[in-house]
Amino acid sequence: MVPQTSASVVVALLMGLVGVWFVLWQLRHVLSYDTGNKTMQTIAAAIQEGASAFLSREYRVIAIFVAIVAVVITTFLQWQTALCFVIGAVASAGAGYLGMYVAVRANVRTAAAASRGLHEGLRVAFGSGAIMGMSVVSFSLIGMTVLYLIFKGDPNHLTYITGFGFGASSIALFARVGGGIYTKAADVGADLVGKVEKGIPEDDPRNPAVIADNVGDNVGDVAGMGADLFESYSGSIIAAATLGAALGGKSAAAFIGLPFLVAAVGVISSLFGIYKVIGKAADVTVATPEASASLQARAMYYLNRQVAKIDENASLDDLLKALRDSVWGASAVVLVLSLFCVIASGVHFNYWLVILVGLIAGNGIAYTTEYFTAYTEKPTQAIAKATQTGAATTIIQGLAVGMMSTVAPVLITAFAILGSIWLGHAADGTMAAGLYAVALAGVGMLSTLGVTLATDAYGPVADNAGGIAEMSGLPKEVRHRTDALDSLGNTTAATGKGFAIGSAVLTALALLAAYVTAAKIESLNILGPTMLPGILIGAMMPYLFSALTMMAVGKAAHEIVLEVRRQFHEIPGLMEGTGTPDYKTCVGISTESALREMILPGALAVVVPIVVGHVLGKEALAGLLVGTMSSGFLLAVMMANAGGAWDNAKKLIETGEYGGKGSDSHKAAVVGDTVGDPFKDTSGPALNILIKLMTIVSLVFANSFGSGWLSF
Amino acid sequence: MVPQTSASVVVALLMGLVGVWFVLWQLRHVLSYDTGNKTMQTIAAAIQEGASAFLSREYRVIAIFVAIVAVVITTFLQWQTALCFVIGAVASAGAGYLGMYVAVRANVRTAAAASRGLHEGLRVAFGSGAIMGMSVVSFSLIGMTVLYLIFKGDPNHLTYITGFGFGASSIALFARVGGGIYTKAADVGADLVGKVEKGIPEDDPRNPAVIADNVGDNVGDVAGMGADLFESYSGSIIAAATLGAALGGKSAAAFIGLPFLVAAVGVISSLFGIYKVIGKAADVTVATPEASASLQARAMYYLNRQVAKIDENASLDDLLKALRDSVWGASAVVLVLSLFCVIASGVHFNYWLVILVGLIAGNGIAYTTEYFTAYTEKPTQAIAKATQTGAATTIIQGLAVGMMSTVAPVLITAFAILGSIWLGHAADGTMAAGLYAVALAGVGMLSTLGVTLATDAYGPVADNAGGIAEMSGLPKEVRHRTDALDSLGNTTAATGKGFAIGSAVLTALALLAAYVTAAKIESLNILGPTMLPGILIGAMMPYLFSALTMMAVGKAAHEIVLEVRRQFHEIPGLMEGTGTPDYKTCVGISTESALREMILPGALAVVVPIVVGHVLGKEALAGLLVGTMSSGFLLAVMMANAGGAWDNAKKLIETGEYGGKGSDSHKAAVVGDTVGDPFKDTSGPALNILIKLMTIVSLVFANSFGSGWLSF
Repeated sequence: MVPQTSASVVVALLMGLVGVWFVLWQLRHVLSYDTGNKTMQTIAAAIQEGASAFLSREYRVIAIFVAIVAVVITTFLQWQTALCFVIGAVASAGAGYLGMYVAVRANVRTAAAASRGLHEGLRVAFGSGAIMGMSVVSFSLIGMTVLYLIFKGDPNHLTYITGFGFGASSIALFARVGGGIYTKAADVGADLVGKVEKGIPEDDPRNPAVIADNVGDNVGDVAGMGADLFESYSGSIIAAATLGAALGGKSAAAFIGLPFLVAAVGVISSLFGIYKVIGKAADVTVATPEASASLQARAMYYLNRQVAKIDENASLDDLLKALRDSVWGASAVVLVLSLFCVIASGVHFNYWLVILVGLIAGNGIAYTTEYFTAYTEKPTQAIAKATQTGAATTIIQGLAVGMMSTVAPVLITAFAILGSIWLGHAADGTMAAGLYAVALAGVGMLSTLGVTLATDAYGPVADNAGGIAEMSGLPKEVRHRTDALDSLGNTTAATGKGFAIGSAVLTALALLAAYVTAAKIESLNILGPTMLPGILIGAMMPYLFSALTMMAVGKAAHEIVLEVRRQFHEIPGLMEGTGTPDYKTCVGISTESALREMILPGALAVVVPIVVGHVLGKEALAGLLVGTMSSGFLLAVMMANAGGAWDNAKKLIETGEYGGKGSDSHKAAVVGDTVGDPFKDTSGPALNILIKLMTIVSLVFANSFGSGWLSF
Repeated sequence: MVPQTSASVVVALLMGLVGVWFVLWQLRHVLSYDTGNKTMQTIAAAIQEGASAFLSREYRVIAIFVAIVAVVITTFLQWQTALCFVIGAVASAGAGYLGMYVAVRANVRTAAAASRGLHEGLRVAFGSGAIMGMSVVSFSLIGMTVLYLIFKGDPNHLTYITGFGFGASSIALFARVGGGIYTKAADVGADLVGKVEKGIPEDDPRNPAVIADNVGDNVGDVAGMGADLFESYSGSIIAAATLGAALGGKSAAAFIGLPFLVAAVGVISSLFGIYKVIGKAADVTVATPEASASLQARAMYYLNRQVAKIDENASLDDLLKALRDSVWGASAVVLVLSLFCVIASGVHFNYWLVILVGLIAGNGIAYTTEYFTAYTEKPTQAIAKATQTGAATTIIQGLAVGMMSTVAPVLITAFAILGSIWLGHAADGTMAAGLYAVALAGVGMLSTLGVTLATDAYGPVADNAGGIAEMSGLPKEVRHRTDALDSLGNTTAATGKGFAIGSAVLTALALLAAYVTAAKIESLNILGPTMLPGILIGAMMPYLFSALTMMAVGKAAHEIVLEVRRQFHEIPGLMEGTGTPDYKTCVGISTESALREMILPGALAVVVPIVVGHVLGKEALAGLLVGTMSSGFLLAVMMANAGGAWDNAKKLIETGEYGGKGSDSHKAAVVGDTVGDPFKDTSGPALNILIKLMTIVSLVFANSFGSGWLSF
C-alpha cells in the first residue's frame, strides 16, 4: 500500500523538479532579451523598485501573521501541522515573489521586443507568464510531496499536510487582498485625477501615480493571482488525498496517489501547452551557445515543427487561436496520460471520467466567461449600447450582465458535482467515493494550471509593456502591438478566472467533506437547530468581505487622488512636462494603505470560522461554509464578469463605436470600467480565496470544535 | 380540540370584518376631502385612468396564469387546493386594487389638503395608506378563516389552505415585478430625457412621461407592495398553522389556533397605531352627521385625547416621532394582548417570548435599515462625500454600503431563528416545536402589518401629491409640505422594507419546514448527492431573477426614452410649454413593456422548483430553497439598502451639501439614484417574493416529488 502511494508521490516530486528546471531555464531565456533604451530602463527600474518594496513589506506583515498562527497551531494542535503551515506559506510566497520578479523585468523586455514584432513581444510576455505558472505548480508539488515523504510514517501525515494548504491560503488571501487594494487604488487614483480632471492620457509620465499604477499590475495581477491559484492547486490535491485516505480499503494507497499522479502528468501537459506558444522562442534559442538550453531546444525542435502555428506576421486572431490551442492541447494530453494513471493505479475507470468532467467543466466555465466579457459578443455590446443613455444605464446593464453570467457557471458546476458524485458512487458504492470524485474533478480541472496560469499572467506584463512604451515615447506601432497583446491577455484572463472560480468551488466542497469527516459530524440536517443561522451568516460573509475591500479601495484611492492633486498644484511645470513628478510618494501611499486595509478582511476570514465553530458548534460551522461557498461563488462570478464586461465595453467604444474616445458614451463607459476595477481585480477574486480559506481553517481546527456553547 | 381552533379562527374572522368596516369608513372619510382646482383634477384623472388601465390589463394577464395553474392543481392535486388558490389570488388582487384605487384619489386630495397645512396633508395620505394596510390584513384573514371553516371537517384542510398562500404569492410576484418594471421604466425614462437631456425639473408637465411616472408610483409602490405583504402575512399564518398541526398531541388545536389569535389581536393593535396618527382626523369626523362614523368617532374621541400628540404646527421630527410611536405603540399592544392569547391557548409561556423575539427582530432590522439609508447617518453621508470624485466612486461606495448593511439584518435574523428554535425546543422538547416557533415569530413580526404597511404605503401618495402640486403650479409652500411628507415616507419605508425582508426569511424557513414534512423527507444531509447542486442552483436564482428584471427595466426605459425624444422632436412648442404632450402613449408603452417583461421571471419562479423537484428530486429541491433563501436574502437587502442610500445621498446634496443641486456632485448623485431605482423598487423587493413563492410552490406540490430522475 504505502509503496504504491510513495511511488506516485515521488513521480510528482520529480515532475515538480522538472518544472523548476524549466522555470530556471526560461528565466535565463527571458532575462537574455534586451531592455530597450535608457528611458525605458529607468522607468522599469522604478517599477521594479516599487514592486519589490511593496512585496517585501507585505511579506513582513504576513510573516507576523504566519508566526502567530504557527504558535497557535503548535499550542492547540501539533507542531508538525505548524511546520507544514509555515512551509506552505513560504512556498506560496516564493512562487509569488519569483513571478513578480520576472514580470517586472519582462515588461520592459516585452516593450523592446514588441518594437520588432507582435510575436516577438508575445514570446517574452508569455515566457514570463509561463515562469509564474510553472513556479506555482512546481513549488506546490515539491512542497507537498517532500512533506508527505517526511511524515509518511506518521498516521496523521495527511492531517499535517492540510497545514500546507492553510499556509498557502493565508498568503493567498493577504496577497490577493493587499495586492488587489494596491493595484486598484493606484489605478483608480491615477485615472480620477489624470484622465478625468486633467484630461491627460493613461500612462502619461506626467501623472505622479503612473508608476504606482504599473507596480499595482504586478503585485496584484501577478503575485496575487499566483498565490490564489497556488492555493487552489494545493488545496485540490490535499482534499483529494485526504478523502482518498478516508475511503480506506485496499485501494486507499491508490486513491491517495492518484491526485499526485494526475498533477504530475499535468506538469508534462502544461509544458507541452507552453511550447505550443513559445515554440519559436525555443527555436531561436537553438542558435545560442547555452548547452542546457540547446539540448532541450533541439529536443523540442521537432515537436515545434508539428505544432507551432504562429509566424511573425500572425494576426491577433492567430495569436488567440495559438493560446487557445495551447490550453486545449494541454487538456488533451492530460486526458491521455491520466488514463494511464488511472489504469496504473488500478482504480475504477470512472475516475478517469471524473477527470474528464473536471476538465470539461473548467473549459466550459471559461468559455461562458469569455462569452459574457468579450466585446465581440452580445452581452458586452449591450453594455456599450447602454452607454448612449449615460453612466446610470451603463451600470445597470453591466450589473445585469454580471448577474446573468452566473447562470452557466453555476449549472456547469452543479452538474460537474452531480456527475462526479454519481461516477464515484457508481464505482465504489459509497457517498464518500462520490465526494472523493468531486475532489479529483477539481484536480483534473487544475491539472493544466501551468499553462492556464501562463495565459493569464502574461496579460499584466503586456499591460506594463504598453505603459513603458507610452511613457518612454516609443513609436505608435509599438504601443499598438502591446495594446493588442494586452487585449489578448484580457480575453485569456477570462479563461484563467473561469478555472479559478470553478476549481475554488470544487476544492472547497471537497475540503468541506474532509472537514465533516475530520470533525466527526454524524448528521448534517439542513433543518437542524443551528444550521440555518450558520448558512445565513456564511452567506453574509462574502458581502461583508466585499464591502470591506471595496471601501478599502475607495479610501486608498482617495489618498492617492489628494496626493496627485497636491503634486499638480505644488510642483511647477508638471502639467507642461518640465517638472518632475514624485512617483515615490504615490508608491509609498499605495503600499501603506494597502497593507493597512488588508488586515481586517484577512483576519475576519480566519477568525469567523473559529468563533462560529466554538460558539454555534461544528454543525453550524458546516452550514457557515456552505453559505459562504454558495453566496461567494455567485458574488465572485458576478463581480468578475461585470468588471470584465465593463472593461471591454469601454475598449469597444475606443475602437470608434458609439462616438469613440472622448464622446459622452466613452465617458459613461469609463465610469463602468472604474466601478468594475475593484469588482474584477480586488473583491471578486478575493472571494475565491475567502471560500477556500474559511474551509481550510475549519478543516485544520476540526478536532477542536464541539457542539457549541449555544447549542442544545 | 376542534372547537378551540374554530374559536380562534372565528375571532380572527371577526377581527377581519372589523378591519373591513374600518376600511370602508376610512375610505368614505378620505374621499370626502376636496379635490382642489380644475387642473389638479384633470391631472389626477389622467393618473387614475392610467393606473386603472394598467391594473386591469395586468390582472387580465394574471387571470390567465391563475386559470392555467388552477387547472394544473385540480388535475394533479385536488380541486379544493385549486379553489383556495383562486380565492387567495382574488383576495390579494382585491386588496391591491382597493389600495391603488384610493391612492390615486388620495394623491390629489393630499395636495389640496397640504395647501392648508402639513398635518392636514399627512392625515389624508396616511389615511389612504391605512386603507391599504387594513385591507391587506382583513382580506387575508377573512379569506383564510372562511376557507378554514368551510374545509375544517376534511383532514387535509390545512393542505388546501396552502393553495391560498400560493394564490397570494402568484399575484404578489406579478404585481411586484410588473408594477416594479412599470414604475422604474417610467421614472428612469422620464428622468433620462427630462432631467438629463432637456434640463427640465422633475414632475414638469412638459415631460410626456410624467403621468406614466406618477402612475408607476401607484401600481408599483402601492399595489405591488400591498400584494407582497399580503403574501408574507398569509404565508406566515399558514406556515405556523401547518407546523402546529404537525406537532400533534393534545395541544395541536391550540398550536393551530394561536397564529390566528395573534393575527386577530394584531388587527386591534394596528387600529390603535393608526389612530395614534390620524386621531385628529377622527376628531374632525365627530362633527359630521354620519351616524356610523360618528359612533365610532365618539368612541375614539376619548382614546385620541390620550394619544394624539400631533397638532397642526407639528414639525417634521414630530411627525416622524408620531409615525414611530404608532408602530411601537402597536407592537406594545400586540405584546400585551398576545400574552392573553398564549395563556388562553394553554401553550407554554415560551411561545409568547417567541412573539416578542419576532417583534424585536422586525424592529431591529427596521432600525438598522434606517441607519444605513438615512442621510443623517454616516453610511449615506459617505456616499454623498464620494460624489465629489465622480459617478464611479459614488457607485462603488453605494454598493459597499449596501453590502455592509446586510450584516446586521443577517445576524438579527440568524439569532431570531436560533432563539425561536431554542424557545420552542425548550417548551416542547422537539425540533418540530422549534420550527413552529420560527413560524410564530414570523406571525409576531407581521402582526402589526396593518399599521406598518400604512406608514409605508402613504409615501407614494405624498410623492404623487407633490407631482400634482408641481404640475398644477400650486404655491411653493405646498410643494415643500408634500416634499416633507415624501421624505418622511422614504424614512418610514425603510421600516416597512425591514419587516418585509425579515418576515420573508422567517416565513420561507417555516414553509420550508412544512415542505420537508409534507414531502416526507427523512434525511436532509447537506453533503447528500444532490443537495449541493441544489443549493448552488438555488443561490443562482435570485441573480438570474434580478438580471432579468433589471434588464427589463432597462429595455422598457429605453422605449420610453425614444418616445419622449420623439415627442420633443415632433410636437411643436412642447419645450416652450405651448404644445400639449401625449401622455397616453407613454402610459401605453410602460403598460405594454411591463406586462411583456414580467412573464419570464414570473414563470421561472414557478417552474424551476417543479422541474428541480422532479429532475433532481425532493432533497435537491430542499437544497434549492435553502440556496435561494440565503442568497436572495442577502441580495435583496443589499439592493434595497444601496438604492435607499443613493436616493438619500442625492437628497442630502440637494439640501446644499457638496455644492447642492446642479453641481458635479449632484450629477454623480443622480447617477447613483438612477442605478438605485431598479435596485430598491424592482429587483430587490421582488426577491422577497421569489423566496416565498418558490417555497410555497414546493409545499403545494410536495406530494408529487419523488427521489428525482437523476438521483441514485
